[in-house]
Amino acid sequence: MEQLFSRLANYQDEMVEIRRHLHQNPELSFEEVETPAFIASYHEALGLEVRTGVGGRGVVAKLKGGKPGKTVALRADFDALPIQEENDSPYKSKVPGVMHACGHDGHTASLLVLAKVLTELKEEVEGTIVFIHQHAEELAPGGAISMIEDGCLDGVDVIYGTHLWATMPTGTIGYRTGPVMAAADSFTIKVQGKGGHGAQPHKTKDSIVIGAQLVSNLQQIVSRRVNPLDAAVVSVGAFEAKNAFNVIADTAKLTGTVRTFKEEVRVAIEQEIDRIAKGTCLASDASYEYVFKRGYPAVVNHKDDTEFVVDVARKVPGVLELEEIEPQMGGEDYSYYLERVPGTFFFTGALDDSWEEVYPHHHPKFKINEDALLVAASLLGAATLSYLKQDSSRKVLS
Amino acid sequence: MEQLFSRLANYQDEMVEIRRHLHQNPELSFEEVETPAFIASYHEALGLEVRTGVGGRGVVAKLKGGKPGKTVALRADFDALPIQEENDSPYKSKVPGVMHACGHDGHTASLLVLAKVLTELKEEVEGTIVFIHQHAEELAPGGAISMIEDGCLDGVDVIYGTHLWATMPTGTIGYRTGPVMAAADSFTIKVQGKGGHGAQPHKTKDSIVIGAQLVSNLQQIVSRRVNPLDAAVVSVGAFEAKNAFNVIADTAKLTGTVRTFKEEVRVAIEQEIDRIAKGTCLASDASYEYVFKRGYPAVVNHKDDTEFVVDVARKVPGVLELEEIEPQMGGEDYSYYLERVPGTFFFTGALDDSWEEVYPHHHPKFKINEDALLVAASLLGAATLSYLKQDSSRKVLS
Amino acid sequence: MEQLFSRLANYQDEMVEIRRHLHQNPELSFEEVETPAFIASYHEALGLEVRTGVGGRGVVAKLKGGKPGKTVALRADFDALPIQEENDSPYKSKVPGVMHACGHDGHTASLLVLAKVLTELKEEVEGTIVFIHQHAEELAPGGAISMIEDGCLDGVDVIYGTHLWATMPTGTIGYRTGPVMAAADSFTIKVQGKGGHGAQPHKTKDSIVIGAQLVSNLQQIVSRRVNPLDAAVVSVGAFEAKNAFNVIADTAKLTGTVRTFKEEVRVAIEQEIDRIAKGTCLASDASYEYVFKRGYPAVVNHKDDTEFVVDVARKVPGVLELEEIEPQMGGEDYSYYLERVPGTFFFTGALDDSWEEVYPHHHPKFKINEDALLVAASLLGAATLSYLKQDSSRKVLS
Amino acid sequence: MEQLFSRLANYQDEMVEIRRHLHQNPELSFEEVETPAFIASYHEALGLEVRTGVGGRGVVAKLKGGKPGKTVALRADFDALPIQEENDSPYKSKVPGVMHACGHDGHTASLLVLAKVLTELKEEVEGTIVFIHQHAEELAPGGAISMIEDGCLDGVDVIYGTHLWATMPTGTIGYRTGPVMAAADSFTIKVQGKGGHGAQPHKTKDSIVIGAQLVSNLQQIVSRRVNPLDAAVVSVGAFEAKNAFNVIADTAKLTGTVRTFKEEVRVAIEQEIDRIAKGTCLASDASYEYVFKRGYPAVVNHKDDTEFVVDVARKVPGVLELEEIEPQMGGEDYSYYLERVPGTFFFTGALDDSWEEVYPHHHPKFKINEDALLVAASLLGAATLSYLKQDSSRKVLS
Repeated sequence: MEQLFSRLANYQDEMVEIRRHLHQNPELSFEEVETPAFIASYHEALGLEVRTGVGGRGVVAKLKGGKPGKTVALRADFDALPIQEENDSPYKSKVPGVMHACGHDGHTASLLVLAKVLTELKEEVEGTIVFIHQHAEELAPGGAISMIEDGCLDGVDVIYGTHLWATMPTGTIGYRTGPVMAAADSFTIKVQGKGGHGAQPHKTKDSIVIGAQLVSNLQQIVSRRVNPLDAAVVSVGAFEAKNAFNVIADTAKLTGTVRTFKEEVRVAIEQEIDRIAKGTCLASDASYEYVFKRGYPAVVNHKDDTEFVVDVARKVPGVLELEEIEPQMGGEDYSYYLERVPGTFFFTGALDDSWEEVYPHHHPKFKINEDALLVAASLLGAATLSYLKQDSSRKVLS
Repeated sequence: MEQLFSRLANYQDEMVEIRRHLHQNPELSFEEVETPAFIASYHEALGLEVRTGVGGRGVVAKLKGGKPGKTVALRADFDALPIQEENDSPYKSKVPGVMHACGHDGHTASLLVLAKVLTELKEEVEGTIVFIHQHAEELAPGGAISMIEDGCLDGVDVIYGTHLWATMPTGTIGYRTGPVMAAADSFTIKVQGKGGHGAQPHKTKDSIVIGAQLVSNLQQIVSRRVNPLDAAVVSVGAFEAKNAFNVIADTAKLTGTVRTFKEEVRVAIEQEIDRIAKGTCLASDASYEYVFKRGYPAVVNHKDDTEFVVDVARKVPGVLELEEIEPQMGGEDYSYYLERVPGTFFFTGALDDSWEEVYPHHHPKFKINEDALLVAASLLGAATLSYLKQDSSRKVLS
Repeated sequence: MEQLFSRLANYQDEMVEIRRHLHQNPELSFEEVETPAFIASYHEALGLEVRTGVGGRGVVAKLKGGKPGKTVALRADFDALPIQEENDSPYKSKVPGVMHACGHDGHTASLLVLAKVLTELKEEVEGTIVFIHQHAEELAPGGAISMIEDGCLDGVDVIYGTHLWATMPTGTIGYRTGPVMAAADSFTIKVQGKGGHGAQPHKTKDSIVIGAQLVSNLQQIVSRRVNPLDAAVVSVGAFEAKNAFNVIADTAKLTGTVRTFKEEVRVAIEQEIDRIAKGTCLASDASYEYVFKRGYPAVVNHKDDTEFVVDVARKVPGVLELEEIEPQMGGEDYSYYLERVPGTFFFTGALDDSWEEVYPHHHPKFKINEDALLVAASLLGAATLSYLKQDSSRKVLS
Repeated sequence: MEQLFSRLANYQDEMVEIRRHLHQNPELSFEEVETPAFIASYHEALGLEVRTGVGGRGVVAKLKGGKPGKTVALRADFDALPIQEENDSPYKSKVPGVMHACGHDGHTASLLVLAKVLTELKEEVEGTIVFIHQHAEELAPGGAISMIEDGCLDGVDVIYGTHLWATMPTGTIGYRTGPVMAAADSFTIKVQGKGGHGAQPHKTKDSIVIGAQLVSNLQQIVSRRVNPLDAAVVSVGAFEAKNAFNVIADTAKLTGTVRTFKEEVRVAIEQEIDRIAKGTCLASDASYEYVFKRGYPAVVNHKDDTEFVVDVARKVPGVLELEEIEPQMGGEDYSYYLERVPGTFFFTGALDDSWEEVYPHHHPKFKINEDALLVAASLLGAATLSYLKQDSSRKVLS
């Protein structure tokens, strides 16, 4: 393990270099070409077994250890966002309107260098390590689901992944058992009333009045119909009914988002929105169209694996604090991996205390403390080796 | 006509005396015994053809004039209210909790003395006069409908009636063509949700939340679904859902009233309440019971007859002013007569300028200026004789 | 009077010719150039005293009768609408996107030819006749107010005006005492909440939820706060809050219209909207901007003048029926004239029974039966002469 | 420790006997007389230092161990409920309308017998044990707060308590770190509008319409204004506005409950209800009275102490399963102890698998499996001795 940490530390410059290279050359979700090629050639240079175009644009590299054992998967996503960078670093994005504003460049750099070190330690590795480089995390339906369908999890016993987190101090690892990131769905309700002159409401079915009731009634889903112990959000983000001031609108369009952590709550909310839309429109003799579009499901960390990673983390250099975090309301398609194999997803603090201002993820001035890359790689590597060791040990014992 | 006016004026004391006798001995709707007996014996003493127990407790007296002609009906109601009188006059109600607080005692006294005078003028009368003394105006279904079914309007060509009006100056006659008093209906909606503990809303269907929405949604009937040119009122008068503070109510009961002037609006509102209740309950998966109970329909004055009475009124002593009034939102079962025969219903001012305070109808301190009785009798009598004269004249001419 | 009718009938072709000329050459409100020039030269050719540029673009012609007397004003508006005509008549609009789709061409033609005939009968005229040709009726603030300020009503005792009405049979005159066209105001409410992420409602003030409540609460103005006997409409025509589905909107903009017939109701509604906006926003700790923009006030016909015109109409050739109409919810700046001098505004039926389809005013296929022009001119002329005659007679008598 | 368990097991019959004695003689909150006397005399018989009338009706007994050390408090409540028992056991309640329907009889019996055993083991005890027998847990303000003020926690280092739980299998211990029982507050809002006749809404301020809006608007507290990750409930349990169907209500009274787990959320909700009431009433020019009555705060278990008790529980005979439970929405005044000293509150399963039907706490047929008493006493005793041992050990070591 000491070998792991010291070798990673030695390669820290390379890690940063790779990250900056990727940062300068970001590619949008489902449009990644150069990035997967870069990743694949790096792994190939290490001599690993590499598969490209996995589930579309993903790359999977496999390291077979010198001894038999279980299989650990490590995942890093590599797509960027349609954001114009506003930072002025020397390694600023070269692509107008595209930016690594979520840290995926760092995820990838960490994983590549970790692969290099683990390859060097290959003979000691008791099992197999699968490096999953995923495209298109930022855009539904995401790359995870297709990569899984294309076999990236075949034979995998456990999966670990992390997200660099720009609002958490570098040195802190955020963890949580159970739901850690929300299911993020969207919906649209189009109320079809009957338009007419503003001075003759009785000849119309006023879609703005109906839509307004609908917004009010939707508040009851969270306040009345969801278990108070289950977190849930139903937000209407847009209400569109544009007409002349003296015309009664025939249609009103509501668009919104739903966030949940449990599948049963998610399904119930989808149904309750429909029930409320149906009743509210019926009360005004109007009709409606309702579309509920599922985004990623909740990321639900497995208990044993999370506790295991926390235990491992206590001994990883650079890890200064372990923080049990609140669930995040944002979404991640890492959820799909955890629906199939055990594992966990943790947050690696990447905030630099010297910054005057901290910008959130997806902000044009988003940045990360590059020291965090080493922390991420160290913990992922330590967890991997510990898991395989632990496992083989147990096999020996039993 | 001069004979009519002077004779009525001569009997003014008797009119007041009768009114005070009735005032002291009020009887509730559908419980009238002494009052109809008193009325019947008065008419019998005049030698008129009298029918009692008409439609239950009504009294009808018929005066056949000395010459052939048409038939005019005059209506006065004679029931009292379940109110404890708070006036201290010498002729205060002797019956605890019962009071002539709406002027029906005056209506009856006017009509009886008018009958006496018209009997004296009998030979000049060109046609027939029917005196309709109606029980139970104050309590639905009212006495009018059953008296009509029992034949009180048979052969009648026109009907006149008046209401003493304590908030309009004595000497003023209020008239209006078309709707003059509203249809007054009532409704009950019982929302059936599902009760439970206040801390576990998700296991309930909260009938208070549903009922609250219902109240809000009902506002749309008048604001959106009734022609703005048609007057209408939908009011919820009671909202009952009583439980412990920490229990979610399984039922909520709403009770209200609807006022309209047109049958089509009335029917539409009855349906819209149902539509809104249905949709609102459906939105919460709850059920409901809805009862719409029709009260009296609107009193709709006939145009020609109203204008005729106004013309007649210009020459009646004591009539100082003719005022075209706004429709009244209160109800009256005089409406049933006007649904069957032409006629009008006018308001005879009975306010005394010397009063320090004016109490509305149905108030424990309600009173009337007794001078108004003579005005009412004079106009009813003048309209009757004019109609019969006019009519026979026209016959002569054609 | 026979002279008036027969001479007008003789000039019917000219009336139609003028109307068609105007129809082919429509001009938008506040952009009228050729139309007022045409009107002015017509009156000048008659030898009348003509004033142009009145209140901007209006034309006023004055005919002094051969005998002294009172002064009658007659008003016709002459602006057109920003509508592309879809009729295929030989006299179709020559101006793309501009059309006389409200009959103002007919109003003007009737009034011009009436001026010609009255000029011919000048010696018999007992007083003065003022021909008010008004620009910009279709666009607030309208031309009436500025023409009045510029003196067009100076010395005027009474004013008459009419609107050709394409949905009422030719031969019918629609009249009404009191409010006949509504005050038409508009309002905007901008709710200022606080935006944020759709998954974090507790960090926002959700302007869509607030705006929705506002729409619901505004329903109470008509249902609860306006006398049920007073017609009023409050309609929200636009609800704009456009954001990404997963963002909570920081502002929502509501735009609507208010229609009333009484100034007191109008003022009360303006205040109640503000009260409701204030309370509703306060309940969510949000702020708002409220603008209530007054349009034209209600057109309120004077009783005596309306009845007088109706009496006159009974003897006008071509008037087949007199119909007491319901108030119209649309607006007209004729209201300003009636706020200053007595008078009336009536509707002249212009529907042709032979039409397969009837198009409402402001429709691209709007048309009128040109026979109605003669009816309008005849009634306006007859009312004018009768008023002046009546008046002088009374003077003789007293 | 073996001594503890075996001695407790030997006294199981006595435990049951005491429990049945108390069950037959229940006393209401703040009316307890015989129960505290019984408790005091039991402890006195053991030779403990006993204080009665603590904070009103509480009893505190103190056992000084044979060796110096820290101080552990154990709490059992002893009041009963105003419920008529519907069970038919031989030891059914003898007091009409009063019943131990929440298991406090069992709590008391366990603690008394545990005191007896610990007294027997006194010489081994390294420190002091305080037995807190609390009155009036069922009725706000509860007995805890006054007992604390009267010194029952003086010198106490840690406190343990348990609740027998009839819906959890006997043998299961339910635990949770952090909030485990909710703060349970109540509120009343009295809307003061202006009454009037149902047919004249414009002369009133309709308190039912206002109250209905208020109920709808209150839904936003949980749906919009509380962090979705924080559990909270706002329920209106009663809506009272009772009038004749044709009268508009001048007042409407809403009564409800609020449940929260964090003080900041509790405070925010209290304020938001006020904000919403203020704005909603302002929008209708009405006024209101708002009373928010705090019940018990949330019971918040300390992390270290909870984990310690769980560790201890693993070795307690009769403990078959340890279950991390969801927070309970009900309230408990045990919260006050934990606000002052560290400790935990756990649930001791008392359901008997052989029951055909399970009745919840506060039900007339509520019952417990009496075997659970031994489990409760064993775990409380084991935790106490372990704590004192652990502590003294540490002292020795340092």
